[in-house]
Amino acid sequence: MKTINNPEKATWSDILQRPTQTVNDIEATVTQIFEDVQRNGDQAVAKYTQLFDGAELKTNIVTVEEIETASAKVSKPLKEAIQQAKSNIEAFHTAQKTEKVSVQTTEGVNCWQEKRAIQKVGIYIPAGTAPLFSTVLMLAVPAQIAGCKEIVLCSPPNKEGKIANEILYAAQLCGVTKIIKVGGIQAIAGLTFGTASIPQVYKIFGPGNQFVTVAKQLSTKYGVAIDMPAGPSELLVVADDTANASYVASDLLSQAEHGADSQVILVSTSQKLIDAVAEEIQLQLKALPRQDIAQQAIDNSKSILVETDAIALDLINQYGPEHFIVCTDNNDFYVDGIENAGSVFIGNYTPESAGDYASGTNHTLPTNGFSKAYSGVNLDSFTKAITFQNITKQGLLNIGNTIELMAEAEGLQAHKNAVTIRLNDLK
Amino acid sequence: MKTINNPEKATWSDILQRPTQTVNDIEATVTQIFEDVQRNGDQAVAKYTQLFDGAELKTNIVTVEEIETASAKVSKPLKEAIQQAKSNIEAFHTAQKTEKVSVQTTEGVNCWQEKRAIQKVGIYIPAGTAPLFSTVLMLAVPAQIAGCKEIVLCSPPNKEGKIANEILYAAQLCGVTKIIKVGGIQAIAGLTFGTASIPQVYKIFGPGNQFVTVAKQLSTKYGVAIDMPAGPSELLVVADDTANASYVASDLLSQAEHGADSQVILVSTSQKLIDAVAEEIQLQLKALPRQDIAQQAIDNSKSILVETDAIALDLINQYGPEHFIVCTDNNDFYVDGIENAGSVFIGNYTPESAGDYASGTNHTLPTNGFSKAYSGVNLDSFTKAITFQNITKQGLLNIGNTIELMAEAEGLQAHKNAVTIRLNDLK
Repeated sequence: MKTINNPEKATWSDILQRPTQTVNDIEATVTQIFEDVQRNGDQAVAKYTQLFDGAELKTNIVTVEEIETASAKVSKPLKEAIQQAKSNIEAFHTAQKTEKVSVQTTEGVNCWQEKRAIQKVGIYIPAGTAPLFSTVLMLAVPAQIAGCKEIVLCSPPNKEGKIANEILYAAQLCGVTKIIKVGGIQAIAGLTFGTASIPQVYKIFGPGNQFVTVAKQLSTKYGVAIDMPAGPSELLVVADDTANASYVASDLLSQAEHGADSQVILVSTSQKLIDAVAEEIQLQLKALPRQDIAQQAIDNSKSILVETDAIALDLINQYGPEHFIVCTDNNDFYVDGIENAGSVFIGNYTPESAGDYASGTNHTLPTNGFSKAYSGVNLDSFTKAITFQNITKQGLLNIGNTIELMAEAEGLQAHKNAVTIRLNDLK
Repeated sequence: MKTINNPEKATWSDILQRPTQTVNDIEATVTQIFEDVQRNGDQAVAKYTQLFDGAELKTNIVTVEEIETASAKVSKPLKEAIQQAKSNIEAFHTAQKTEKVSVQTTEGVNCWQEKRAIQKVGIYIPAGTAPLFSTVLMLAVPAQIAGCKEIVLCSPPNKEGKIANEILYAAQLCGVTKIIKVGGIQAIAGLTFGTASIPQVYKIFGPGNQFVTVAKQLSTKYGVAIDMPAGPSELLVVADDTANASYVASDLLSQAEHGADSQVILVSTSQKLIDAVAEEIQLQLKALPRQDIAQQAIDNSKSILVETDAIALDLINQYGPEHFIVCTDNNDFYVDGIENAGSVFIGNYTPESAGDYASGTNHTLPTNGFSKAYSGVNLDSFTKAITFQNITKQGLLNIGNTIELMAEAEGLQAHKNAVTIRLNDLK
């Protein structure tokens, strides 16, 4: 880690710069596959599944038997772990339900707001070296609580045409209504346009590589909503001498193992802590199976020494970290003052991995500074707020003139007329 | 209006098709202006303001004196109308505030969610034939309630270099912190990158022509959030013989006057009502100053006769109207069953224009079927939900093993290690 001592505020935006992603060069590929899937449906999907995943499938729809066989192969301890995580995620997301908001704004003018579920949602789960079944929990559990009717999961098959057992087990446990063996651009295109096997959905959730990211972006042009824009995962830890250096090092490394482009930043008012963490990182790195990846991420990462908590907070809000760990003597100051962050982890016994898996909070969070404007996935991500109003005769008499005056001033005579014609009957 | 009798469900998607917008041909222009503003800042902005708005400005920042002069020119009755509307909008959006959601998901595992304001927001208000000051209320009022620190309003100047009096009056009334005379693509580019005069913001709200729409879309590629994708305004009315045909006609016309591409649909179980509305439309049309525009929109619009309320509701949910008026003997059925709509207006004395101006609900709503996945603008549009967690030693003992098992199964050893290293100290 590079250590930077008390940087001037003017240099912060350079220091905190994230690696730029160039996606322009793959847009053409994504657009072409979208057009192909739109035109040729499952035939195109099958072609790309063979090309990119090396799998030739008789059918891409996962059967009940496949799910049962897969579930039987998941160990009992892992099943119990998944169930505990699910139960916590359920508790936290169920608590996010909101009541109808009802207001009589003027006598006789009754307005209310209700949340209704998005009827059809798609969940994308990448494959890769290990099965990311935890993301199934994070997306399907709130979808089910919200009341989404169709919860469609797409995940690429391996060369043998299979999806990992843990993903299938988690999917059926969390109420996924259809599982389809399809990945990459063709999966997102299928969810966008619908094919004979893939239902068209209204919103697509889930992580993926840069092809999936660009495909999700493109799907919004066709009217499909997405959870949020994506970027490499990142963690910022603020810690002082009350923190445990080996714990801090373990948290930084847990982020670093995600990929060489992971962002890891340590902010501290203590040079001593910074030094101790650097030492601990070197010790712990040696024992990691993904040592190479973690080492690269650590090499690109920064320790920033600042003079006060106030400066630290200012810098952290400018960065807007996805994950933010606070381990200081002054935790309340940070918790109260944080404006831009995805999820905040407080104290020595709250590692980021708790939120990644099992505490109950969601792990689909805004990266790349998007926490300045975006929320992480939560129950509301699976609903829309609809407003309703019911105005009585007296209510219209009370606000009618206001509507007439404003509509007239905006030059919209028919808007005025819709009120006048009613008021004339009431007067 | 074209009348369609009891159409087969298979034909609905054709009948309900919205006009397709072609924006591809203007993307190049938008991209080029973005690059110019990113590189040359205010100099580029001034160039385009002169080119597109015909205005040469000494400064594009609106002064306090300008606002005072403009406010003095707004009539007292209109000021009072604007204040009543503001007060209702405030009441409805203030009621949408949510408390901290706090759950102990497992003993010692404390999770909570809090909403925090988006610090910097941009509001775009188009110019054109009439000043859309009502949109200033709809966006600045909730921004102020949410606690946004910077509320930046951009609106194009006329040839004399001025913004409409009503817009300036409404902006200062609703707590806008900076008003800038800039419109079109250059305004959105300025808010995206920041210039010497235009602050960079995290989220951009507001309507606009197709150039503004494409510019907002492009701004998302640079990490700026937007309120929602845009499309022509639309209204669907479901009415039966208990409705007043002349009121229904006035509502359809109030939508039709927005533009020739406005979408107006009447759904009914009564041929008699459909005929009566058609007759009333012809009568009322003659008196409208924007008769030509409204006539074109009406020509493109449809009356759909269906046999039952259940069929009507199914069709309406497939369409997902921005505005949905319900005037039937069976209103509760529609209100309970509507899944996809922006805002719902119930009964004979609830014209759409009430919600456009003064009832208190927001008028920035999802068009183009986006109501299937998007909410209209509401208080939460100006906040992010941040999650927090604080785990005690006992809490980590309670969920630690679950995290270890799941992390291991996902092949993320450092994630597991962040827990193991702590558990070892606790055991």
